[in-house]
Amino acid sequence: MFRKVLVANRGEIAVRIIRTCREMGIRTVAVFSEADRESLHVQLADEAYCIGPASPMGSYLNVINIVSIATLTGCDAVHPGYGFLAENADFAELCADCNVAFIGPDADAMNKMGAKDVARKTMADAGIPVVPGSDGLVRDWNEAAEVAENIGFPVLIKAAAGGGGKGIRLARNKAELENGFRITRQEAAASFGNPGVYLEKYVEDFRHVEVQIMADQYGNVVHLGERDCTIQRRLQKLIEEAPSSAVTEEKRREIGELAVRAAKAVRYVGAGTVEFIYDGAGRVYFMEMNTRIQVEHPVTECITGIDLVKEQISVASGKTLSFTQSDISMNGWAMECRINAEAVDRNFVPSPGKLNLYLPPGGPGIRVDSAAYPGCVISPHYDSLIAKLIAWGPTREEAISRMKRALSEFVVEGVETTLPFHEKVLRHEDFVSGNFNTKFLEKNGFL
Amino acid sequence: MFRKVLVANRGEIAVRIIRTCREMGIRTVAVFSEADRESLHVQLADEAYCIGPASPMGSYLNVINIVSIATLTGCDAVHPGYGFLAENADFAELCADCNVAFIGPDADAMNKMGAKDVARKTMADAGIPVVPGSDGLVRDWNEAAEVAENIGFPVLIKAAAGGGGKGIRLARNKAELENGFRITRQEAAASFGNPGVYLEKYVEDFRHVEVQIMADQYGNVVHLGERDCTIQRRLQKLIEEAPSSAVTEEKRREIGELAVRAAKAVRYVGAGTVEFIYDGAGRVYFMEMNTRIQVEHPVTECITGIDLVKEQISVASGKTLSFTQSDISMNGWAMECRINAEAVDRNFVPSPGKLNLYLPPGGPGIRVDSAAYPGCVISPHYDSLIAKLIAWGPTREEAISRMKRALSEFVVEGVETTLPFHEKVLRHEDFVSGNFNTKFLEKNGFL
Repeated sequence: MFRKVLVANRGEIAVRIIRTCREMGIRTVAVFSEADRESLHVQLADEAYCIGPASPMGSYLNVINIVSIATLTGCDAVHPGYGFLAENADFAELCADCNVAFIGPDADAMNKMGAKDVARKTMADAGIPVVPGSDGLVRDWNEAAEVAENIGFPVLIKAAAGGGGKGIRLARNKAELENGFRITRQEAAASFGNPGVYLEKYVEDFRHVEVQIMADQYGNVVHLGERDCTIQRRLQKLIEEAPSSAVTEEKRREIGELAVRAAKAVRYVGAGTVEFIYDGAGRVYFMEMNTRIQVEHPVTECITGIDLVKEQISVASGKTLSFTQSDISMNGWAMECRINAEAVDRNFVPSPGKLNLYLPPGGPGIRVDSAAYPGCVISPHYDSLIAKLIAWGPTREEAISRMKRALSEFVVEGVETTLPFHEKVLRHEDFVSGNFNTKFLEKNGFL
Repeated sequence: MFRKVLVANRGEIAVRIIRTCREMGIRTVAVFSEADRESLHVQLADEAYCIGPASPMGSYLNVINIVSIATLTGCDAVHPGYGFLAENADFAELCADCNVAFIGPDADAMNKMGAKDVARKTMADAGIPVVPGSDGLVRDWNEAAEVAENIGFPVLIKAAAGGGGKGIRLARNKAELENGFRITRQEAAASFGNPGVYLEKYVEDFRHVEVQIMADQYGNVVHLGERDCTIQRRLQKLIEEAPSSAVTEEKRREIGELAVRAAKAVRYVGAGTVEFIYDGAGRVYFMEMNTRIQVEHPVTECITGIDLVKEQISVASGKTLSFTQSDISMNGWAMECRINAEAVDRNFVPSPGKLNLYLPPGGPGIRVDSAAYPGCVISPHYDSLIAKLIAWGPTREEAISRMKRALSEFVVEGVETTLPFHEKVLRHEDFVSGNFNTKFLEKNGFL
């Protein structure tokens, strides 16, 4: 097992990783930007080093500084968390070259899933349903028009290097397609250094259902059930739950098997998530695979009892999976609300600042993952997440009741928060009945 | 179902009860002493009323004030928590007379278990093993000497009205018995208004194993497994866990059935705990029954997924139990550390004061039940509990690792705490191996 792990991240996920390392008896090295000197992950780690200025490019994306500190401090592994370097294949390779284990899949699997057009083709070849669309990249406007005619409008224009809601544009007709094709290519070249785009049929009003998988270096792949992340604003998830109220036992088995097949197709190792479009009429389509731990992983932990970060570290160190498929069972229902420092009534604009008061809720069935403390600063340099509030209950109804109770007692003062937004969503009858899709917030006037 | 519940308590258990009421959609009325004006339970309840001065006699034991407020505010039930009025049969009767449901057993069951000599006899009559001892109260010194000769020294002299570590004295020989008999009678008369005492053989070095039971008004009784509360200082529990590392599956079934039989023998309704002496050699003896929710109830909640306070309220309102014996299963391991404001190195003397800093731990498997917040005061008028820290893990080993991690990140400044004490106990090899008894702290120099 590793003796010392560098945590190449900040905020709640850095704290989350440090917690599990401590439980495993592994020493931790935190890295931090000049803006994060007082951060909780710095306080909780065994060692901590400043790696650059507040801007991510200078610090949390500073590959050279991070790998140098890992080697200089004798770390035998790096955990990238999510975001920043988590899906950067070059970083994973550099770690490997420096004899520092990257806690995640290898560069090859990352590349295969990172290039969204390649992922689409790889999945289709493995017999996994993908949304109708172009056969790989679309070279020019003529080809785009032809593909759109074949699959029918509306279509999505997607950057091959995009993902997670970035580099994506909707076209409802030929004029929008012409315009969107040009702009998306330009933006993709500027943002990702790769102008390649492809087309996909736009599925409206779907359920976002994703499957957590875990794989070891010996070809064993197990799925840990689905999460439902349908409550989104501009493709950003706000509420996640496990299991999904839209998925039957039979469908659960089917998408679970698809996710395992997807992982095996790229010889995946570690924790990963296969995201599906579920059209509510029984059809699922592969959307993308995220090759890292996800923000919403705690809901899966709550219903399976498995520490996903612990398992990530364990398989990265060369151990076999600590469970087989038949060991996995789901117990009750879990829900996560992302509590952000944002002004909901001003279009969710970030509301950075100092938390004058901070008291997370507690009691039965409540888990809080956060790097916040009284007096800490939610920095304008990074995402606006204050805390992930997770509620577990024996049933979905009880999980909702607990979440509402916990939201009502969560004390955050000094910034605007999304707490009132979540309370409103959780009271909405369509949310309570489980009868909703990705258009829920828009349709019900929450945006 | 009740519409409004008065919570006749303070501190973490008042907060705990308010949380479940809120989840059930029941309005809450808090009562508070002049010292508790700023307390969290006051802030979280829907309504709150001052009932008297800081001294418990004037406020939290002020039966008239509490029942008056319950009736004046239209409460249909009172939850007494633990301590204070929780085992006061007169209070339960007065509530019933005023048409306010007492959330707990009726006065008759409470009396039968509250008088420890009566409980002993009732249990023996029901075929439940009791420690060898006197047949009811011991009238005079001659009878005491005769009983002690029959059962053999050492013996315990116990006040019939005592319990929970109060009104109890050890005698290792005839001289100590003579002296102890006289003093215990005098003290019992002064403390409880009842001089009655009885004798019991003193079992040394045992495991304190107790069984949580839940019963409805229709004779259904279910047990929810055992808790191990062997780590005690002067009969005060400091660490509790569920299940017990000393109990086999077969023994679990046996003591579970004994507990159910005990509850049925007094037509018990509500949540109760049957405490046993387990001698480690396979023999269990009835110790006492606590007719209320207990401090350590969260460990049972963590491994069964059942909200015991919710079930208490539900059966008190006349509903049948929401589960049968076969619905109950145990998942993993849970442990609770009582984090007290006490100076461990000065014989655990209370260390009241203001919490300048307070940040409870979070993350996977951690639950915190507390009424503390940054700037709150741990009052010298009441018990010194700051928080109950509960850790869950798939195995006992993982629960211990999580607890150690959570203890290490718990921030409390302004008072001395038992946090370092718990860290030390959790590192001790006998504790880790599960090889300990009630003498553990004494034997290993923790006291």
